[in-house]
Amino acid sequence: MSDYLAHIDGTEDLKRLAIDQLPDLADEVRRALLEYCEVHGGHVGSNLGIVEATIALHYVFDSPRDHIVFDVSHQSYTHKMLTGRRRAFTDPRLYGTVTGFTNPLESEDDPFVLGHTGTSISLACGMARARDLTGGTNRVVAVIGDGSLSSAVAFEGLNEAGELHGNLLIVVNDNEMSIAENHGGMYANLARLRATGGLCEHNLFRDFGLDYRYVEHGNDVTELVKAFREVRDFDHPVVVHIHTVKGLGLGPDDEGRVESNHWHNAASAAGRPLGARKTYGMMAMDMLAKRFDTEPGLIVISPATPGSNGITREFRAEAGSHYLDTGITEEHAVALAAGIGRAEGTPVLATSATFFQRAFDQIHQEFALNRVPGTLLIFGGGISGTDNTHSGAGDVVMFGNIPGLTCLAPTSGAEFLSMLAWSTGPARRPVAIRVPGEAVLSAERAGGYPRYARAGVSGINADDRDDDNADAASSAATDTAATATDTVTDAVAGDPLRYRITHRGREVALIGLGNAYPLAESAAGLLAEHDIDATVINPRQYSSLDEETLIGLEGDHRIVVTVEDGQLEGGWGEKITAFYANRPANEQVTMQVLNVGASKEVTDRVPMTTLRERYGLTAERIAGRVLGRIR
Amino acid sequence: MSDYLAHIDGTEDLKRLAIDQLPDLADEVRRALLEYCEVHGGHVGSNLGIVEATIALHYVFDSPRDHIVFDVSHQSYTHKMLTGRRRAFTDPRLYGTVTGFTNPLESEDDPFVLGHTGTSISLACGMARARDLTGGTNRVVAVIGDGSLSSAVAFEGLNEAGELHGNLLIVVNDNEMSIAENHGGMYANLARLRATGGLCEHNLFRDFGLDYRYVEHGNDVTELVKAFREVRDFDHPVVVHIHTVKGLGLGPDDEGRVESNHWHNAASAAGRPLGARKTYGMMAMDMLAKRFDTEPGLIVISPATPGSNGITREFRAEAGSHYLDTGITEEHAVALAAGIGRAEGTPVLATSATFFQRAFDQIHQEFALNRVPGTLLIFGGGISGTDNTHSGAGDVVMFGNIPGLTCLAPTSGAEFLSMLAWSTGPARRPVAIRVPGEAVLSAERAGGYPRYARAGVSGINADDRDDDNADAASSAATDTAATATDTVTDAVAGDPLRYRITHRGREVALIGLGNAYPLAESAAGLLAEHDIDATVINPRQYSSLDEETLIGLEGDHRIVVTVEDGQLEGGWGEKITAFYANRPANEQVTMQVLNVGASKEVTDRVPMTTLRERYGLTAERIAGRVLGRIR
Repeated sequence: MSDYLAHIDGTEDLKRLAIDQLPDLADEVRRALLEYCEVHGGHVGSNLGIVEATIALHYVFDSPRDHIVFDVSHQSYTHKMLTGRRRAFTDPRLYGTVTGFTNPLESEDDPFVLGHTGTSISLACGMARARDLTGGTNRVVAVIGDGSLSSAVAFEGLNEAGELHGNLLIVVNDNEMSIAENHGGMYANLARLRATGGLCEHNLFRDFGLDYRYVEHGNDVTELVKAFREVRDFDHPVVVHIHTVKGLGLGPDDEGRVESNHWHNAASAAGRPLGARKTYGMMAMDMLAKRFDTEPGLIVISPATPGSNGITREFRAEAGSHYLDTGITEEHAVALAAGIGRAEGTPVLATSATFFQRAFDQIHQEFALNRVPGTLLIFGGGISGTDNTHSGAGDVVMFGNIPGLTCLAPTSGAEFLSMLAWSTGPARRPVAIRVPGEAVLSAERAGGYPRYARAGVSGINADDRDDDNADAASSAATDTAATATDTVTDAVAGDPLRYRITHRGREVALIGLGNAYPLAESAAGLLAEHDIDATVINPRQYSSLDEETLIGLEGDHRIVVTVEDGQLEGGWGEKITAFYANRPANEQVTMQVLNVGASKEVTDRVPMTTLRERYGLTAERIAGRVLGRIR
Repeated sequence: MSDYLAHIDGTEDLKRLAIDQLPDLADEVRRALLEYCEVHGGHVGSNLGIVEATIALHYVFDSPRDHIVFDVSHQSYTHKMLTGRRRAFTDPRLYGTVTGFTNPLESEDDPFVLGHTGTSISLACGMARARDLTGGTNRVVAVIGDGSLSSAVAFEGLNEAGELHGNLLIVVNDNEMSIAENHGGMYANLARLRATGGLCEHNLFRDFGLDYRYVEHGNDVTELVKAFREVRDFDHPVVVHIHTVKGLGLGPDDEGRVESNHWHNAASAAGRPLGARKTYGMMAMDMLAKRFDTEPGLIVISPATPGSNGITREFRAEAGSHYLDTGITEEHAVALAAGIGRAEGTPVLATSATFFQRAFDQIHQEFALNRVPGTLLIFGGGISGTDNTHSGAGDVVMFGNIPGLTCLAPTSGAEFLSMLAWSTGPARRPVAIRVPGEAVLSAERAGGYPRYARAGVSGINADDRDDDNADAASSAATDTAATATDTVTDAVAGDPLRYRITHRGREVALIGLGNAYPLAESAAGLLAEHDIDATVINPRQYSSLDEETLIGLEGDHRIVVTVEDGQLEGGWGEKITAFYANRPANEQVTMQVLNVGASKEVTDRVPMTTLRERYGLTAERIAGRVLGRIR
């Protein structure tokens, strides 16, 4: 077999190959991707589908002088292999030494770090505009998948591209598949274009004013080179619609091991229990599914990311019209939910904290300002070891400061289900629930919250568990779910917006929000060893302050410590600090308040253990700060 | 002439009219709108264009049983006149007794309060989904203008509508005009559809999988009734594309008095000086225009709202390719700016705080996380007397908590220009500048900041000036601009992120952010009358804390007061409170901090005088709180 890849340390090496050598190179790259993804995990499907297109682009264009913007950039592995980073994919010892997304810190061939969908066309339009303003002659390419095309900003980009007068190539990588399924009438047009070889009269891209070419064999590298060469020097924007096969090279027995286009780290996943996202997501769906027969208006909405949030294939099949995948459309999904809520339906919209950012305005206006009944399930909130484009560390800042939105932060599966029962039942208002994370799951698996659990046992995210771990131990989920359902009514007994004092002590009060509650318990445990009987409080929500409870601490407490697993600036704890600071002055000394949480920064794959140390989010550090103040 | 309107107290009265009486009713409504808008002001153009369509919709459909969702809802005056609220438009004594947007608190015929574009289709899809889930039989209608169609979420809505199987009517009100101009290749398709009577082969709507009808005479009420009756009971979604004349009924001499579709309150505007938005917007554009010849990559971007931000027709004409109107596309505009910045261009993106909310994710990811050089000009930040869908009270919360984004808050025209010179020059980083508001403008017009200006003179937003007041006194702007430019270099001398101590006193320190700085000065003036020599600080930015300056106050100050004109929760002042609270304990007493600012709420046309009292944002109240603490 050929051995071209081993000699490609940059695109100039690729250009030295003859065009008829490229198919063999593609085979080498594909084999490398398969080995890499099986051992290390990654977005295997999308990368396997675009091997040839990536080779052809770098063969025809001159990166970095010509700018190539990969949408979301999760499909940029081949791009990285061809631009000096191949060893990170061919040498097991170097796996993971480059990120899973394009990154300017790694290579000048990566114009942006991207992890959210749909912006590549807009970014490319900007680079083309700048070039034309400054009289540049470089070319600009955007590579976007058919799934990403359904996201709002991509349409805005197409609309603007239709008015550009300079060189711009938009490669639409059509593999007939979004993350889970494609949704939207637009896909009928893509199908018609594929069926007619791009010749049918209705053509979404031409309707936006764009020139158009169709390539049926999107995995035929020579056909692609021909097509790209033809349009390379156009003086106007053109869409090259290529028909590719997602996951090309995967065998039938890979079914199942590859989930929603993502090949899980087989090695590390082996035998590990299900992560918090899926555990609590499945619990929620189990509870809701039981109500579908009697509540016709109850509907679960997922903007194209069901898999990672415990919305299983089985659930989707059973739910029927009670489940809706809107495609990658967060803005629309939130407005849609607002419409459903206003029309007496009961919407439950589930996605990641980082993706809810895209619908900030709709959450603010259509949802919260309109006081429509509905539930937003926030997955992946709080600090984590994830990459910088998917950080959830700012979720409490974003949701907790929106007027009219009730934000809940459960500290157990039972509390989560009871809050969900409330938000989809009597609440009749806009509610956001922060789905519990690994820290809560660890605590529950360690047997709940024994008073004064030993430190560490219930620290935040006891290990850096991959949220996407494959099955096993889903029993744990259902067990918890069972216990949970029994106590549904109990947990939100009384006013769900009142803080819950789980232990009434004196002198020191520890208030732990959501995922940070176990840590407050642990810190109290350490303080007990110094004969300090600390009060421990579960605030349950972060959209308002329970002033009565806070004032009630003034008599016999000197220090209040707030603990949260997200950004402190603009977050939750600072509100409590400000509350005490602004209390009308009186004789007694003002309450001292300590805030424990994350710095204002976006972290990139920093292990949780490192983050906890950096932010002082450990029972030892918290207890130490308290002792420093009162001893 | 006819006298039908006077007898319409609800849509049932409308339905009693014969179809041939509707044209006369339309004339009555149009006359009423003209009188109303000339005296009271309002979105005259869009409302005049859709008079007949609104009458036809209510004649054919049964609101509120059938749901009619008006996009943005600024064009809903006729709808309000026909649904029991006509006197608010026909009786001058009752002008202003209903809002300028649909509002569920006013009528069950208004399903939502809306003020941002593009969500009507998604909201209608939600109402249709809920109906189909619950076996309802009502009809759902979305009314959206061609300008709003360019906004991201509208495309997502069209895409979903293409998959709906129940009744849904989308009325596309095509008046060939957005707020300023239409932008995007899509508009070529709309033009082609108009030219061919809806028969041309390329059809954007059909490509989304939607049924389609075209009505050439969109101001012919009988033709509209016919068209709506035909599709009323369809079992699938249909687009009825109606060609209307925006501003139908306006005379030639109305040119100029009607600006960007908005007829200003002639009465109140008379003789009043230009508002802050236009004054400082014009200053900024004047400065930038001077640099276009020597800086080819410098470009001003406006997502369809140039007029209200001082981006005049003259400027746009002169700027040529240095100015870009992207249409109503905030998400795209921010990503586009990121692309321009990354490609060595210098983007300056200007729009309202409330509209920047739509691009929160792109500001966070493509712009801030990617550290691209670029400037966001935030207009209308802070509390104001505006309606609840356009509140800017949350801008500091939204921008100030985004990691990697530098946020500046100038306190004068000179400081604003110097900061803009910095952000478009040496900064080379993502920067957001909060354009000064009425409070700063009042102070500057009152002769700048005389030490200890009398309270009130420089209170926040001395009067509830309408930002959109027509011309007059634009000289004031240019005068200030002149002074400003001289001091450009001076104002950001040294590190622009350091706080500036404008007066060094003792015991009490007043820190006033941006628009609130004049108030800090005034409060210091009152304290002086009590022999307190208060320190006054202009922090200049709200993205980080100048810890050195804050620590420097500990020696001889007991109280620090933060003053801001936006939401306290999650805002800027609380960060300073938390900073002092979390300082390592030492011998000296902890610093007392008072935070002055707005509550977490969205206000709806509440006069500024009322808001200032409600929030304690007056020199008297601030001085009173300080004296209460130290006396």
